[in-house]
Amino acid sequence: MSTNFSFALSKTDGRARRGRITTPRGTIETPAFMPVGTAATVKAMYPDQVRATGAEILLGNTYHLMLRPGSERVQRLGGLHEFMDWPHPILTDSGGFQVMSLAQLRKLSEEGVIFKSHIDGSTHHLSPERSVEIQLQLDSDILMQLDECIRLPAERDDIERAMQLSLRWAERSKSAFANAMGRALFGIVQGGDVAELRARSAAGLRSIGFQGYSIGGLAVGEPQETMFRVLDEIVPELPAEAPHYLMGVGKPDDLLGSVARGVDMFDCVHPTRAGRHGHAYSRFGVINLKNARHRDDPRPLDETSPNENCRRFSRAYLHHLVKTEEILGAMILSQINLAYYQTLMAGMRVAIEQGTFEDFSSNTRAGWEKGDLPAIE
Amino acid sequence: MSTNFSFALSKTDGRARRGRITTPRGTIETPAFMPVGTAATVKAMYPDQVRATGAEILLGNTYHLMLRPGSERVQRLGGLHEFMDWPHPILTDSGGFQVMSLAQLRKLSEEGVIFKSHIDGSTHHLSPERSVEIQLQLDSDILMQLDECIRLPAERDDIERAMQLSLRWAERSKSAFANAMGRALFGIVQGGDVAELRARSAAGLRSIGFQGYSIGGLAVGEPQETMFRVLDEIVPELPAEAPHYLMGVGKPDDLLGSVARGVDMFDCVHPTRAGRHGHAYSRFGVINLKNARHRDDPRPLDETSPNENCRRFSRAYLHHLVKTEEILGAMILSQINLAYYQTLMAGMRVAIEQGTFEDFSSNTRAGWEKGDLPAIE
Repeated sequence: MSTNFSFALSKTDGRARRGRITTPRGTIETPAFMPVGTAATVKAMYPDQVRATGAEILLGNTYHLMLRPGSERVQRLGGLHEFMDWPHPILTDSGGFQVMSLAQLRKLSEEGVIFKSHIDGSTHHLSPERSVEIQLQLDSDILMQLDECIRLPAERDDIERAMQLSLRWAERSKSAFANAMGRALFGIVQGGDVAELRARSAAGLRSIGFQGYSIGGLAVGEPQETMFRVLDEIVPELPAEAPHYLMGVGKPDDLLGSVARGVDMFDCVHPTRAGRHGHAYSRFGVINLKNARHRDDPRPLDETSPNENCRRFSRAYLHHLVKTEEILGAMILSQINLAYYQTLMAGMRVAIEQGTFEDFSSNTRAGWEKGDLPAIE
Repeated sequence: MSTNFSFALSKTDGRARRGRITTPRGTIETPAFMPVGTAATVKAMYPDQVRATGAEILLGNTYHLMLRPGSERVQRLGGLHEFMDWPHPILTDSGGFQVMSLAQLRKLSEEGVIFKSHIDGSTHHLSPERSVEIQLQLDSDILMQLDECIRLPAERDDIERAMQLSLRWAERSKSAFANAMGRALFGIVQGGDVAELRARSAAGLRSIGFQGYSIGGLAVGEPQETMFRVLDEIVPELPAEAPHYLMGVGKPDDLLGSVARGVDMFDCVHPTRAGRHGHAYSRFGVINLKNARHRDDPRPLDETSPNENCRRFSRAYLHHLVKTEEILGAMILSQINLAYYQTLMAGMRVAIEQGTFEDFSSNTRAGWEKGDLPAIE
């Protein structure tokens, strides 16, 4: 293991955990939300705007970056941090998830997966070794093993086959990663919604040994209660001294419920995607700015928000930008949503420190349930 | 005339003029370039980013704003400055130009023009009086008279008819404007490419009396030499003590040549539109970042630029953003282009003050002609 990556737990409150990840490129206070910079950009945001929301780490998508601009090219250009002007930590996924969801003509074997690019139809392959190689070329700080992620609901046999394959790929990923100084490799727990398979997956990963443990195969179509049940079953099986990362999750309510179940890290495109579609996350819950009720509303989104964008523009103006499909609307709402997510995570961190996570959680949910300001007459 | 709008010439160099417009909302150093905020936003830019490029005044499009969100609505919401969070001066056009170029089923009469919205087909009308009313509702600082602008080439009879109608509309606009305190109304010279008609238009406007004189009906398809010839003929016919505004122009070379001919103000969508299409303006001329020569180029666009965006991102990254059609590409290149335009205007202002406009102009053009940095091997 590298001496330069570490995780320290400072406090727990129920099963919620307050910690800090240390990497050579900076520290990450946990629980942490990672904005997604799919194609080497968090959509509609300058990197310093992303940092200013409080984000300490980004996620980069191996699948997108290997196709465009290409990981060898990114390496020649100095790595992903240099390329996108984000000097802070970056976590990369393995590429496997997007191969399954975006690529064409996939062919999966024990060796890996061969697929055609959704952009130009060119043929590529991904194996545990190649995925690690690409992530190292990108200069990732936290790498993911290649896994096979399947949609739920699924047959138990299919779930088990994919889980076992993922375990064998975990072993090969670890060998390929070797001992890359200053970086970390995370294993990924699979096993769908079957407790026994999840437990076997976790046990297998523990015996290989990783610097962090990701929970894959959730947020793939199942109800929230299924996700929470799987977390209840699986998180206690993960080593307490390593970070727990729930991949591809989620909405604010998912984050609250998952932190309560011992998750330390999250990533999701939802806040920026929702922003581009005219939705703003706030202490009032989600506000649909396309709604005509905002058309003549001179009030800002939330005049008590610490975020200037929530105070300086009227709801009427945001409604106008969304209706006219102006880029500025996507810019402002992406910023507002990422800032809200970071404020939520910061609130959870303070609450865990103070032993008030449950109160924080129920107060936050009560605010969402109360809903938006009454419409103006 | 309002006591709160004024124009002072401080220096001339040849026919190039250095001046200052004073309005209650701020001063505008001339020659000035006005970014276009079509639908109450300069596309892909926050208002403070626009201000930071050096812009002191924006143009708002009456046609777009009257349709969405509606001028009565903007007025109820506190005016356009408040609506879009731009507290500095705003100039509005009359709406006539876009009625001619965008609207459907136009019906032009002595009274005005009836048209259907290109957005939803709803019927609207614009007359000299209604255009002034809308611009006052928007809280514009500098208003334009309604005119009829026709494309070149055109028959002399058509040009003359439109010019005469525009003169009668000028008179009615002046009456409607009355004496709106702290604001200015500009007349618009028409007459196409016919010197005699342009002179008669200018004489007519002078006898009505305006606080500024716009030159309309150029940059509508004619070659640059035609535009420059018309400017050579018409600018000397305009009152020297009032600002001269060339509407809808242009590219950097158009600005140099028009300032040399006595123009004080410009507006154009070109810098932001070109940015959204992957073109960057620079001291090397226009750089097409879609071009594959930039794909592996780690150099910034211009490492000597005062603009951070020209120094912090590599050409390879900008190429990647343009190729992947990422919003951040449009954001960065719009900013780079507007900043370059403002730097160019600032350079012209200093050169006029120092009596070196011709040198500045030829040195600037020489830089553009020399072209971009050699490609890396």
